Amino acid sequence: MTSAPAGAAARRAEDTVSAGSASPAGTHGEGHGRIDLLFEPTARQVRVPVGVTLFDAASWNGIAIDSTCGGHGTCRKCRVRILDGSIAISSLDTRAFDADELRAGWRLACRAQAVGDTRVEVPPLVTRPKAATVGVGRKVILRPAVQKRYVELAEPSLSDQASDLERLLAELSDLELRTDLDALRSLGRLLRTHDYKVTAVIVDDVLVAVEGGDTTGRAFGIAFDLGTTTVVATLLDLTTGMPVAVHSMLNKQQPFGADVITRISAVMMDAAALGRLRDLAHETLRELVDDVCVEGGVSPSEVYEVAIAGNATMTHLALGIDPEPLGVAPFIMSTRLLPELLASDVGVRVHPRARAVVLPAFGAYVGGDITAGLLASGMDRDSRTRLFIDIGTNCEIVLGNRERLLATAAPAGPAFEGAAIRCGMRAAPGAIEGVTISDGAVGLRVIGDEEPAGLCGSGLVDAAAVLVDVGLIDGSGKFVGEADAATLAPGLAERLTVVGEERVFVLHWAGRPGDVADSVYLSQRDIRELQFAKAAIATGWTILLEEAGLQPEDLQQVLLAGSFGSYLSPSSAIRLGLVPRLPVLRVVSAGNVAGEGAKMALLSVRERAGAMALLEEVEYVELSDRGDFNDRFVDQLAFPT
Amino acid sequence: MTSAPAGAAARRAEDTVSAGSASPAGTHGEGHGRIDLLFEPTARQVRVPVGVTLFDAASWNGIAIDSTCGGHGTCRKCRVRILDGSIAISSLDTRAFDADELRAGWRLACRAQAVGDTRVEVPPLVTRPKAATVGVGRKVILRPAVQKRYVELAEPSLSDQASDLERLLAELSDLELRTDLDALRSLGRLLRTHDYKVTAVIVDDVLVAVEGGDTTGRAFGIAFDLGTTTVVATLLDLTTGMPVAVHSMLNKQQPFGADVITRISAVMMDAAALGRLRDLAHETLRELVDDVCVEGGVSPSEVYEVAIAGNATMTHLALGIDPEPLGVAPFIMSTRLLPELLASDVGVRVHPRARAVVLPAFGAYVGGDITAGLLASGMDRDSRTRLFIDIGTNCEIVLGNRERLLATAAPAGPAFEGAAIRCGMRAAPGAIEGVTISDGAVGLRVIGDEEPAGLCGSGLVDAAAVLVDVGLIDGSGKFVGEADAATLAPGLAERLTVVGEERVFVLHWAGRPGDVADSVYLSQRDIRELQFAKAAIATGWTILLEEAGLQPEDLQQVLLAGSFGSYLSPSSAIRLGLVPRLPVLRVVSAGNVAGEGAKMALLSVRERAGAMALLEEVEYVELSDRGDFNDRFVDQLAFPT
Repeated sequence: MTSAPAGAAARRAEDTVSAGSASPAGTHGEGHGRIDLLFEPTARQVRVPVGVTLFDAASWNGIAIDSTCGGHGTCRKCRVRILDGSIAISSLDTRAFDADELRAGWRLACRAQAVGDTRVEVPPLVTRPKAATVGVGRKVILRPAVQKRYVELAEPSLSDQASDLERLLAELSDLELRTDLDALRSLGRLLRTHDYKVTAVIVDDVLVAVEGGDTTGRAFGIAFDLGTTTVVATLLDLTTGMPVAVHSMLNKQQPFGADVITRISAVMMDAAALGRLRDLAHETLRELVDDVCVEGGVSPSEVYEVAIAGNATMTHLALGIDPEPLGVAPFIMSTRLLPELLASDVGVRVHPRARAVVLPAFGAYVGGDITAGLLASGMDRDSRTRLFIDIGTNCEIVLGNRERLLATAAPAGPAFEGAAIRCGMRAAPGAIEGVTISDGAVGLRVIGDEEPAGLCGSGLVDAAAVLVDVGLIDGSGKFVGEADAATLAPGLAERLTVVGEERVFVLHWAGRPGDVADSVYLSQRDIRELQFAKAAIATGWTILLEEAGLQPEDLQQVLLAGSFGSYLSPSSAIRLGLVPRLPVLRVVSAGNVAGEGAKMALLSVRERAGAMALLEEVEYVELSDRGDFNDRFVDQLAFPT
Repeated sequence: MTSAPAGAAARRAEDTVSAGSASPAGTHGEGHGRIDLLFEPTARQVRVPVGVTLFDAASWNGIAIDSTCGGHGTCRKCRVRILDGSIAISSLDTRAFDADELRAGWRLACRAQAVGDTRVEVPPLVTRPKAATVGVGRKVILRPAVQKRYVELAEPSLSDQASDLERLLAELSDLELRTDLDALRSLGRLLRTHDYKVTAVIVDDVLVAVEGGDTTGRAFGIAFDLGTTTVVATLLDLTTGMPVAVHSMLNKQQPFGADVITRISAVMMDAAALGRLRDLAHETLRELVDDVCVEGGVSPSEVYEVAIAGNATMTHLALGIDPEPLGVAPFIMSTRLLPELLASDVGVRVHPRARAVVLPAFGAYVGGDITAGLLASGMDRDSRTRLFIDIGTNCEIVLGNRERLLATAAPAGPAFEGAAIRCGMRAAPGAIEGVTISDGAVGLRVIGDEEPAGLCGSGLVDAAAVLVDVGLIDGSGKFVGEADAATLAPGLAERLTVVGEERVFVLHWAGRPGDVADSVYLSQRDIRELQFAKAAIATGWTILLEEAGLQPEDLQQVLLAGSFGSYLSPSSAIRLGLVPRLPVLRVVSAGNVAGEGAKMALLSVRERAGAMALLEEVEYVELSDRGDFNDRFVDQLAFPT
């Protein structure tokens, strides 16, 4: 695995840096252009959307920039120097730098918006941050469960025969600690070989290890976004809150099926599959641990905690818990809140007594990834009424504000993964990820700037939206007749053709125009698949709005999250009715909120407690036992006209 | 390993039933005769001192007799029938049985004192005991940490999607439980294959397992007396408090040395020895588990907790903790109170999530075996001022009552183990364990009724005591001159001879009298060794009495405990000044109190908490930093005259 940028990009990037891009919080998806940033002296190159601040781009990609305010423009510590490229001088810059410095390229990274390829020099860290910016603009005060305490103990004597452990714990008497047997085993020798100067390693209320001398400067954690398709690991420096390295890779369980249902079915059909799926999850996590530790120059034994955000099936499988009850009505989890776990329980080889925290799940289909997402987006803290939609094969929807939160899950099907789509493919190089029509010409944005090979989810939505917009697809989802097409969009009419018996709209001719062989197209059936997915999602949020007694216009923000949602064009989503009809600026890409939530759980016990509290705060609305679901679903099949 | 009787006997019995004998609480060591009891229908034969009640003899040997009062003569449920042998009718018997029954041999076991070989029929249990008698007459109300709860859960539905674990825990809401991951892993399948009827297995506040159907009738624990020389395991039925099987065997660490110091030295000289010693401890415990489970007809997976009483070195080694700091001044333990442990942490293969409780230690030389002993003898509950002496290579001494307890450790050396004694041997078949002189004739009691082969600790003390008594050893510990001997004890004078340069008293002629070859004798140097041991012990209790401001006559009871103490003749101990000069009835053998304390910890969380509380209640007096120790030691070398 090569390094991949963090954020939503990481899921998509899979195995190439250049295909990825950060999609930071608050950036709505309109500015579709991508630029390259090169950070010196590490020569790390990342691809990000136009307009992202250098601070955000660095932060999401694991590049540490000094800051005590977390990128809010108040501490003026995030000084960077532009080596190549041009970045406008902000009003804050003029207060932070003198004229010579400004001329030399110095800028505050948190205000420096890159609009073209840029090379940036990042000075070494000078302050130790007290907070980090994570998730959707969440500032997290650093208070990790992992604590290190350096102590110098008095040597025992015949008049002071306190045991080694009691001697140590007396210095940590502000904490009520339990002790791991392993820590005890090595304690006596360590104290005596290090002149009674040691560092206690504490996770939550457990003394997990004792290390010789002062090691307080080294404490790491790994946040995992354990996706069905892609798994992302972020190595975090727990003393600074900064990401040190980020890697992603395909979930090795893939051969058992692309979605959770096929993997549950595998276990139902063959009991041995559970062990195999568990082992594959472990192998995936282990490989990522190796990758981020090597890149970050961190010994795995310096990693004392891991956090995992994943859907219920993924976490069940990783823990070796039979997922069968998740897959059949009435869809029961083994537990919402997992017991105290070790990293070794999920097969991760870090410090042997490292702990693991698994974000809790609301239900079989609203898992820990959603809890993490709500945490990262501050749904339970914010007074604004917001709609959170994580779009994937299964679509999780949460509505509300700090007063009340309602959640549900809608079965969107595999359309967005490209599975049931004729020219569908995953978001990999060659996939059309964006489609525009302007002046009768089709514009395509392709991942990796390669020859178009297929259509990924965001491209599918874009294509349908622009064709609805120009009228080539009508409200019922049907391609209009040839005569109407020729009238409505004469320049596009020849693209509306047939493949076999089926009408299609050709997005990209592989050979000469008119020859459909190897072309990339959108078919009538593809539109039907998309309509089913869209209807399921829209039914979900419609019911939640009704339960809450709200109208769509009451929504102050719609957050699009998840492997696919973050890449969706907000205007296309609105155009198709995938999200409520709102001003486009209210529809926002939230990025990889699952991974961000896992990071928050590592950085702050307070945030972690908040995640646990969400279980009590969120009301789950089950759609599958509602008698009116099918009627509403049919109502939602049409596109808004 | 064959079965061995419990109690002090178990340590001694080692590998033969017939050599053993129960030495129950309250029986002072005067009645030296042994008798055989045969319990039907199991045909279990045990050897016990004359005068022991059948209830005690059965109880200590793992034979269940019905009782709700724990042998206190109030419930009248301990009905047994004498098949062969004669047992007097007690006043309680006349109230419990009619004349026909009495004629048929029915007696209350708790009042039936056997004075000769007896065959007894024990009816099957009809009541489930609420209490058990353990230790020195301690009645323990059953409240084990292991609890089983049978529950029948409502099946989940779309309108009741509570997770499996939450569904189960809701039925156990009187307990605030943590959950073992293993229990969670199997929960879903178990609930569904057993119609949501399962038994929760709880140890302390941890849900360790869930079992299909109702298994509440089966719950077992194993109490280990982890001695330096011998290890005893008692399998306990936690639902009745009754022992089911008892086995003992030599500690497999023996090849590393007979005492704790040689084993600590082994680790100091070779770091690899720690792992080897740990493994040997684990092998010893594992073999005993197999033995008691096979004999008791219990699956190891039905054993959910083990308790271990052992000295600090033994528990450190069993847990793989470096014991070196225990062996060198200032004698520091890794910890007094051990953290939460699993049975697997001490290498025991029972239920995979079974817990282990290790009795806490006061200091490097007053270990968990002493804590267990204090618990079993109720030192912290009793208003009487008592002296508790556990005699072995290291001698632990505790003085006090429920108001105040003082403890110390005195280095008695290996004399009592027979190590530095010319004809010394361990208490095994052929060892002279008792010596009397009457009418100028020497009487010997030999273990196993074999040809005398050597002298064990109790025989050594007896031999010296009777020779001091008849005047052949003077107050300074020297054999008197030949002329004096001939005057004082004409019939014994020829036994006072020389071996090499050294004067000896021959206890047993192997060939014709006068030929010292292969004879068993007590040498002048043996007496010196005994004097050193005696002086160390007497110095210990003298200092404790002083610290407490007490005189010897203030002592209401002296309890002799441990592998050797229980076998010591109280009158001999008094005669030599090993214990304070008191009426002989006040000096009592306490039996295997370490093992009994471990049993109490398994049977009652209240008693277990009492053991933990002892740590705060006992004041430890360190002898090795006292400037006056040597002077006092020299003062105590003489025998009382």
